[in-house]
Amino acid sequence: MQKSAISPTRQENYPEWYQQVISEADLAEVSPVRGCMVIKPWGYAIWERLQKILDARLKDTGHVNAYFPLLIPLSQLEREAKHIEGFAKECAVVTHHRLISDGEGGLKPDGTLEEPYVIRPTSETIIGTMYSKWIQSYRDLPVLLNQWANVMRWEMRTRLFLRTSEFLWQEGHTAHATAEEAVEETLKILELYRCFVEGVLAMPVIVGEKTEGERFPGAVNTYCMEAMMQDGKALQAGTSHFLGQNFAKGYDIQFTDQQGQIQHVWTTSWGVSTRLIGGLIMTHSDDNGLVLPPQLAPHQIVILPIYKKEEDKHRVLSFCKDLQEKLHALNWRDERLRVHVDMRDIAGGEKNWQWIKKGVPVRLEIGPRDIADNAVSLYRRDQAVKERHNTAVAELSLMLPTLLEEIQCGLFTRAEKYRHDHSVHIQNLKEFNAYFEEKNEGITGFAHCYAVDSPEVEQYLKPLKVSARCIPLEQDGKEGVCIFTGTKTRNKVVFARAY
Amino acid sequence: MQKSAISPTRQENYPEWYQQVISEADLAEVSPVRGCMVIKPWGYAIWERLQKILDARLKDTGHVNAYFPLLIPLSQLEREAKHIEGFAKECAVVTHHRLISDGEGGLKPDGTLEEPYVIRPTSETIIGTMYSKWIQSYRDLPVLLNQWANVMRWEMRTRLFLRTSEFLWQEGHTAHATAEEAVEETLKILELYRCFVEGVLAMPVIVGEKTEGERFPGAVNTYCMEAMMQDGKALQAGTSHFLGQNFAKGYDIQFTDQQGQIQHVWTTSWGVSTRLIGGLIMTHSDDNGLVLPPQLAPHQIVILPIYKKEEDKHRVLSFCKDLQEKLHALNWRDERLRVHVDMRDIAGGEKNWQWIKKGVPVRLEIGPRDIADNAVSLYRRDQAVKERHNTAVAELSLMLPTLLEEIQCGLFTRAEKYRHDHSVHIQNLKEFNAYFEEKNEGITGFAHCYAVDSPEVEQYLKPLKVSARCIPLEQDGKEGVCIFTGTKTRNKVVFARAY
Repeated sequence: MQKSAISPTRQENYPEWYQQVISEADLAEVSPVRGCMVIKPWGYAIWERLQKILDARLKDTGHVNAYFPLLIPLSQLEREAKHIEGFAKECAVVTHHRLISDGEGGLKPDGTLEEPYVIRPTSETIIGTMYSKWIQSYRDLPVLLNQWANVMRWEMRTRLFLRTSEFLWQEGHTAHATAEEAVEETLKILELYRCFVEGVLAMPVIVGEKTEGERFPGAVNTYCMEAMMQDGKALQAGTSHFLGQNFAKGYDIQFTDQQGQIQHVWTTSWGVSTRLIGGLIMTHSDDNGLVLPPQLAPHQIVILPIYKKEEDKHRVLSFCKDLQEKLHALNWRDERLRVHVDMRDIAGGEKNWQWIKKGVPVRLEIGPRDIADNAVSLYRRDQAVKERHNTAVAELSLMLPTLLEEIQCGLFTRAEKYRHDHSVHIQNLKEFNAYFEEKNEGITGFAHCYAVDSPEVEQYLKPLKVSARCIPLEQDGKEGVCIFTGTKTRNKVVFARAY
Repeated sequence: MQKSAISPTRQENYPEWYQQVISEADLAEVSPVRGCMVIKPWGYAIWERLQKILDARLKDTGHVNAYFPLLIPLSQLEREAKHIEGFAKECAVVTHHRLISDGEGGLKPDGTLEEPYVIRPTSETIIGTMYSKWIQSYRDLPVLLNQWANVMRWEMRTRLFLRTSEFLWQEGHTAHATAEEAVEETLKILELYRCFVEGVLAMPVIVGEKTEGERFPGAVNTYCMEAMMQDGKALQAGTSHFLGQNFAKGYDIQFTDQQGQIQHVWTTSWGVSTRLIGGLIMTHSDDNGLVLPPQLAPHQIVILPIYKKEEDKHRVLSFCKDLQEKLHALNWRDERLRVHVDMRDIAGGEKNWQWIKKGVPVRLEIGPRDIADNAVSLYRRDQAVKERHNTAVAELSLMLPTLLEEIQCGLFTRAEKYRHDHSVHIQNLKEFNAYFEEKNEGITGFAHCYAVDSPEVEQYLKPLKVSARCIPLEQDGKEGVCIFTGTKTRNKVVFARAY
């Protein structure tokens, strides 16, 4: 029997398995700064891939990047009441601007600021302040800006990638002349996110609207995508908010319309973050470690030279380098293949396992015998570790792009099946309670039930530690009865435990 | 006479001209956050170009990206004495982790942190702490990491791009087994920076070593590149530091060498920042606004459709779109040409001036008559605004890449000549004093003189507001006499006023 690379397995201890996958793939680790992580090179390379692809798509839809200050003056934060209420409990506050000796060999803060600053938990407030200066006329609209930045929310319980005090994200902020146009933007981005997450991260998501209690502080509507992890829990993978005129009124963002009337603009905001990497890990990885979809993998193909005798070394290495060059010239999904040769002088088995645990989609082992046959031993990360495909070198050019496409789509299909197998349609409260009972030993996933959006339902859910994940945009239009309140409704809602 | 687009001109008021160039090109503006700027889309697009090219070069030389926390615990900062001494006066300090009501409708900081945090002014300390965990053996070396991040230094006098409290940069941090290897890395990066800044930004620089008083806090040697602005002042455009074992000792970064001995590693750090954009502006721009080197320009070519009659509109626009597509397929310096068509329905003159002020290298005006002739009116940003080149469309494919190369190199040559014309070789103190006299009405540039690196010289320079910019790496090897102390030396030093 093959030894598992990750201990414990998913079944033995899912949260600990998650930590081990991250640690064995060398993606990130905790830092001495409370709740903040260090993103290590392999983890950051995944983030860079993600950034590159998403950034191009945002630009293709007319968005441009800008950069706004890290710090927000307290007085500015206060201008949208619900917004600040939502973030006040988790703000890092800057109160001093220098350090002086504490007289005991250490240092202490000095130079009290007249007005404290908060490290941005999100940038609606500072961006709104600038928009009120920039926007005067309907000719200035729409404003379609995006920012790649770090943000800070002082979290009490943190977990690498999924919830950290500091995280990296992109935040889009747009302003429009009409409500219709702003709603359209909100939904356009939601769809762009869905295509990106399903197509590139191979993570199936349900897109829908948040219930009132789960809305972004200050938003009129919050739309989201929800993905299912392998423990059945939901992960909110991204959000898109229609902010109405709430921030426009709080920050005096007004324009003269074509009729000469002064009006408030309509704004949106939307973001995805390094949290996506947590979702990626929990969606595809197995008991051997990380599994990366080819479009996101920093190396899609790793070539592993195998030789025992010193006299074979040169021949094997140069064969591998030549092959790498050949493969680099190939295209898949409009990009050159990313091929790495691992030339390090360490044991072959150790090398091989390192790349398995790092999730590289395809491994090519090449030894003296393969060279004699002009062939390689090909291994796929989405198959069993020892499932070997003897492949002629001449075939690789034609077959690798197809293979990457197959792996990419296969991961999506597998995840979609997993979600399907762990979703239920529930007709009444008794079934609902049984499904979410703590002693249920199987995996509890998504429960779809008729429900209304009311505080009463939220009160009911709290002790169960279950939440309404979203009201899916796609509904069959049939009428049913809310399992909590008995009210008639056409909406089915997705309920789950969540990260 | 052509009206100048920027008022005042460089000669009338250089600092105010600089602000106006930024404002008219819509690059950035001040924010309500003390000393922090907002980088607007055109400015940020330039930064993205710069990032993309430099990042690729750093990766080509074996460096990988990672991300470390924004906040640094006070106790960690204290472990390298000279380092903290250098930064203590300008640190933003986080002391609280939430906000509560102040009872008067406002908010106040609450939740005092046990240990305050500082927003990173640079990351040697937090990265050193991680390196001490990661590095155990000579097999773990070298570590070649880079980080793209925001940093914060509480500056009292700020100026857009050149000196802001928050700025964006890349900071490289490497660890090596030997001093030789670390010095080699320090100089390799200095050379990489020089090639990048001279080749891409078209900014000539003098590379050299900083004198002791100008060294990075905690470094053994600081190397830098110094550029000359059009007012003759020097701008430090980037630095590369050999840190010796100072940080390795402060942060316990040790490894077991091949002989089994435990040793401290040798580290380096190096960075360039958004300050480069300030340097770029001050090097090339003229009294009509920004001038961008083609390799850095977000649009290299802007097509301006010209029509007066509504019936011409469709024909002109579709001709322009077709031409854009044709030009997009062209390559220059291994990248596709970046061509924009300005379809906006505003007056032609206004449009034209906007792109002049934004520094676009080439403008193509196309009207009904041009279409009839199958020609365009080509204007170069490095020539007079009205200098028109009637060019056949058929010629464009062959001539545009050559033209961009000519503009790119021409900007460099012009800047180099400017520097040459404003540099002097000075033999004695009397000449030196006369050169740097306040009442000198010409442009005071770089003074090259024999000098030693001593506190005595620095004391002498202070009241003149002049500093030793660097000891150039390139020296003719002849011996001379320090103009300040009379000591014999083989080093000429560059002196200037500086930003």
